[in-house]
Amino acid sequence: MTSKPRILTGITTTGTPHLGNYIGAIRPAIQAEGQAFYFLADLHALIKCQDASRIMQSRREIAATWLALGLDTDQAVFYRQSDIPEIPELTWMLTCVCAKGLMNRAHAYKAAVQENQQAQDPDKGVTMGLYSYPILMAADILLFKADQVPVGRDQIQHIEMARDIAGRFNHLYQGDYFVLPNAQVDAQVEILNGLDGRKMSKSYNNTIPLFASEKQLLKLIRKIKTNSLEPGEPKTTEDCTLFQLYSAFSTQAEIEAMATRYAEGIGWGEMKNVLFEQINRQLAPAREEYQRLLEAPDYIEQVLQKGAEKARFYAAPLMDEVRQAVGLGKFI
Amino acid sequence: MTSKPRILTGITTTGTPHLGNYIGAIRPAIQAEGQAFYFLADLHALIKCQDASRIMQSRREIAATWLALGLDTDQAVFYRQSDIPEIPELTWMLTCVCAKGLMNRAHAYKAAVQENQQAQDPDKGVTMGLYSYPILMAADILLFKADQVPVGRDQIQHIEMARDIAGRFNHLYQGDYFVLPNAQVDAQVEILNGLDGRKMSKSYNNTIPLFASEKQLLKLIRKIKTNSLEPGEPKTTEDCTLFQLYSAFSTQAEIEAMATRYAEGIGWGEMKNVLFEQINRQLAPAREEYQRLLEAPDYIEQVLQKGAEKARFYAAPLMDEVRQAVGLGKFI
Repeated sequence: MTSKPRILTGITTTGTPHLGNYIGAIRPAIQAEGQAFYFLADLHALIKCQDASRIMQSRREIAATWLALGLDTDQAVFYRQSDIPEIPELTWMLTCVCAKGLMNRAHAYKAAVQENQQAQDPDKGVTMGLYSYPILMAADILLFKADQVPVGRDQIQHIEMARDIAGRFNHLYQGDYFVLPNAQVDAQVEILNGLDGRKMSKSYNNTIPLFASEKQLLKLIRKIKTNSLEPGEPKTTEDCTLFQLYSAFSTQAEIEAMATRYAEGIGWGEMKNVLFEQINRQLAPAREEYQRLLEAPDYIEQVLQKGAEKARFYAAPLMDEVRQAVGLGKFI
Repeated sequence: MTSKPRILTGITTTGTPHLGNYIGAIRPAIQAEGQAFYFLADLHALIKCQDASRIMQSRREIAATWLALGLDTDQAVFYRQSDIPEIPELTWMLTCVCAKGLMNRAHAYKAAVQENQQAQDPDKGVTMGLYSYPILMAADILLFKADQVPVGRDQIQHIEMARDIAGRFNHLYQGDYFVLPNAQVDAQVEILNGLDGRKMSKSYNNTIPLFASEKQLLKLIRKIKTNSLEPGEPKTTEDCTLFQLYSAFSTQAEIEAMATRYAEGIGWGEMKNVLFEQINRQLAPAREEYQRLLEAPDYIEQVLQKGAEKARFYAAPLMDEVRQAVGLGKFI
């Protein structure tokens, strides 16, 4: 018997979705086959962000984004991490079986210690949140018996840690309580460049918000760095941010036609207008829906509550087993 | 305006209550004035005990003990830690504001590192549970705005850490969310000696179970170490485990009368019989109730569920505030 793989993805709620998120993560997720769990990782957001209004706004924007783009919440399980009390509960149970040495080897923690090389205290500025979040991440994954967790290369270690912790729990309590998850590293993932030609990323401040207004979208596209070739001069598509962006929103035929126009010397100004039209045409309907949803927080709340109910329905039987396993079951 | 202090005590559910627990903690707790929160610290039990059946049995025995001894669950809030999902939730929120350096200074962790001096890895055998439980303890206390936490000297640091974490959260999120708890170190706490004359403690294997059967109680009392003075020889009450135990169960007048009999040379055999009668007379009714309760797990479960409801009722308004403070409120 084969069953559909269970895919799980969390989105940390500290920023506003941008085109890079859309192309690299959201669009493929919404189109993915399989049984999907998508969640707003708002407990993770607390690790690095103490700005409550930013977290609150990000949660709304991300939820509205996924819904506006047509996520089918009857198929997928779409929820807010903080609505699932079983996640912190399981986190504690896993904390009790997790070796401290495992956390010592986590990349993010080691990078922080490295930065403190000059400081007297290697743990300077390190919170327990930063140190122990791989356990929270393990709980996120294990609670829903996810087998496939799509991640970037820098996240593979987290999945390995989740496997390690799951294996240790299964061994200690002598049962197959947890499914060992697999990292799904997709070499095909499209990484979009930002305004300055580097990878589009909040931390580089070079992003184009996914649902920027028409006016803002045009303005930002006009700011994208190009070389100084004049109109009429043949241009290469390679390493061209404009071409890369265009490709992300185009069919194979459109891409090929545009490559011809590059060879024919399309001017950067014209290309930017074409690119704007191409993106805008595709995003306009979702953008309108997004704006409408942002004005309807009660509707989003309702969708997320339904999602939480569904998620907890999946989590409940496993948590019952786990509580029994460790000796924390009810008395009757 | 003054209000009754709010007292909180957790009992780790890994053992069977013994006379030392009764005299040192349970009896004073049941007699205490003030608004009391008593809980079975079963999430803490997971740190050191992977024997599920032992934890399960201990939870039942401890709950039955407190109820059999007449804890008024209409006055006190009596609950199982694992029934309060707000505790692990708050634990995570506190984890995110807690400096790792604070945990590095915890006595229990430092002792473990000390023991590993010869090992290559100072964290050998240390779990994240052992390392980070002061944060769980802070959540236990802060969630119920406890001002007074009765502790032994070895636990003072935990209260200081809870204050530290609470202060940091209040500062970061600019509000008086948490009450800073005070350690209540009672110099008067009676510490009972065990069968071998050392402090009665599970780890010394020298305990007398609180609800041992009559036969077993007599047998254990007969095993208590004495000196070799013969009947008729005058005896000193000082450092005498039998006298100390007798005192713990006697009125001032009875104690004085017994001191006279010591001076008159009461024999150890006779003293042991007298002691047995004194303890047995007082514990017999509760013991009977205890046995009855152990046979009625559904009743205990019901009492604990009611307690959990009450505890969560107290916790709810604070958790709402805390969620809002960090940006994890609902959308409407």
